[in-house]
Amino acid sequence: MLSNIRIVLVQTYHPGNIGASARAMKTMGLTDLVLVNPRQFPDPEASRLAAGAEDLVDDARVVGSLAEAVSDCVQVVGASARLRSLPLPHFDEPDEMARDLVAQAGHDPVALVFGRERFGLTNDEIRCCSHQVSIPANPDYGILNLSQAVQVLAHELFTAWRRHPDSGYRPSRPVQERQPTREQLGHFHDHLRRVMRHSGFITQPHARTEDQLEALFARARPNRKELSLLRGLLASLESHLPDA
Amino acid sequence: MLSNIRIVLVQTYHPGNIGASARAMKTMGLTDLVLVNPRQFPDPEASRLAAGAEDLVDDARVVGSLAEAVSDCVQVVGASARLRSLPLPHFDEPDEMARDLVAQAGHDPVALVFGRERFGLTNDEIRCCSHQVSIPANPDYGILNLSQAVQVLAHELFTAWRRHPDSGYRPSRPVQERQPTREQLGHFHDHLRRVMRHSGFITQPHARTEDQLEALFARARPNRKELSLLRGLLASLESHLPDA
Repeated sequence: MLSNIRIVLVQTYHPGNIGASARAMKTMGLTDLVLVNPRQFPDPEASRLAAGAEDLVDDARVVGSLAEAVSDCVQVVGASARLRSLPLPHFDEPDEMARDLVAQAGHDPVALVFGRERFGLTNDEIRCCSHQVSIPANPDYGILNLSQAVQVLAHELFTAWRRHPDSGYRPSRPVQERQPTREQLGHFHDHLRRVMRHSGFITQPHARTEDQLEALFARARPNRKELSLLRGLLASLESHLPDA
Repeated sequence: MLSNIRIVLVQTYHPGNIGASARAMKTMGLTDLVLVNPRQFPDPEASRLAAGAEDLVDDARVVGSLAEAVSDCVQVVGASARLRSLPLPHFDEPDEMARDLVAQAGHDPVALVFGRERFGLTNDEIRCCSHQVSIPANPDYGILNLSQAVQVLAHELFTAWRRHPDSGYRPSRPVQERQPTREQLGHFHDHLRRVMRHSGFITQPHARTEDQLEALFARARPNRKELSLLRGLLASLESHLPDA
């Protein structure tokens, strides 16, 4: 699925942006990079900023036109900060775009296209796209650096992929700690109440204060080990209190 | 709300990362930057990479410890790529973290803390936090550049803020085009069927093909102007067909 998602950079001016974009791609599981008429490529800056993603830079395909870059794709989303007059279907929300693109990528190649740092994509290049997406940003200062835009949309694609039922993604989550039973919690509550009363914190039966503290602990959901720690603490404190 | 969200960078090694992080923040509406013991700051690289966000760099507070940076905060989330043995509540999903942090930021300052490029945060610094968050990434290559991590989490915060009922965010959406009525669509369908039959495309009454094309147009949801264009096209084609 992810391997069917192509990132296309059109006429990138700074080779460093190519490298940083490759790094952004690789952290999010993307590998297919195509460059349309890069101004200066190959270049040591591209390799330097790629850090551990030089393989993506070395394997990047270089072509002469956007049409050539996406001819085999079934969906092409143009990322553009600037509104265009062409009425292409437009995703205002990157996460919606990502879910849609990942769903299409199950079967055929798809592409996400980024334009020039200053000038974005031309109208003819927008015509090579089936959809557009913009990254909602600060209206007073909304232009992300090119490789930052690649990182944000790659992150949304990786998120959509992870959450897709057919991705096969298996997160490594820590083992769930065992929870105490109602009976064990009951013992803890009794112990806590006893200490609150014997210490003089509660002078009359004060169900409200006791309930409030019990609700706090309920919210914290102590596991069995933690409950054990709390019981131990209460026992140590209790040993200094006068007998009931 | 957004103004209550502080970004804290701990012992950043490359001043360029400070500048790029400031730019990332500003594109997502964040302004409060605090630096804990930056290795080299102020520095021309920080200003250069900040692009139009130099105001954030110039206004950044510099302090000697993380505790000092977040003493007034009610929630502090440590962004860490490396798992720690301390059992702090952990957000596996950046969007969940963002919704939680934005909700807290309605009333009091909160902070999102990033560690050193290579070494992340120390255990003592994790103890200054109430929560941790990690950015899910490629298990084979999962380390984002520091300013890229800031951009991703700032984007999630801005998204959570926009979607929060109390944010007052008003997107500028284009005016919705008027839709045709069922009657107008009915005229279009009749016209389309007439042309399909008179052209010889359908030789016998073939309800299935006609239904399929009508379903395609239903999915496209032509607005009134578009329906008008289609009717005009059908009329031009029809003028060349033999009379029924």
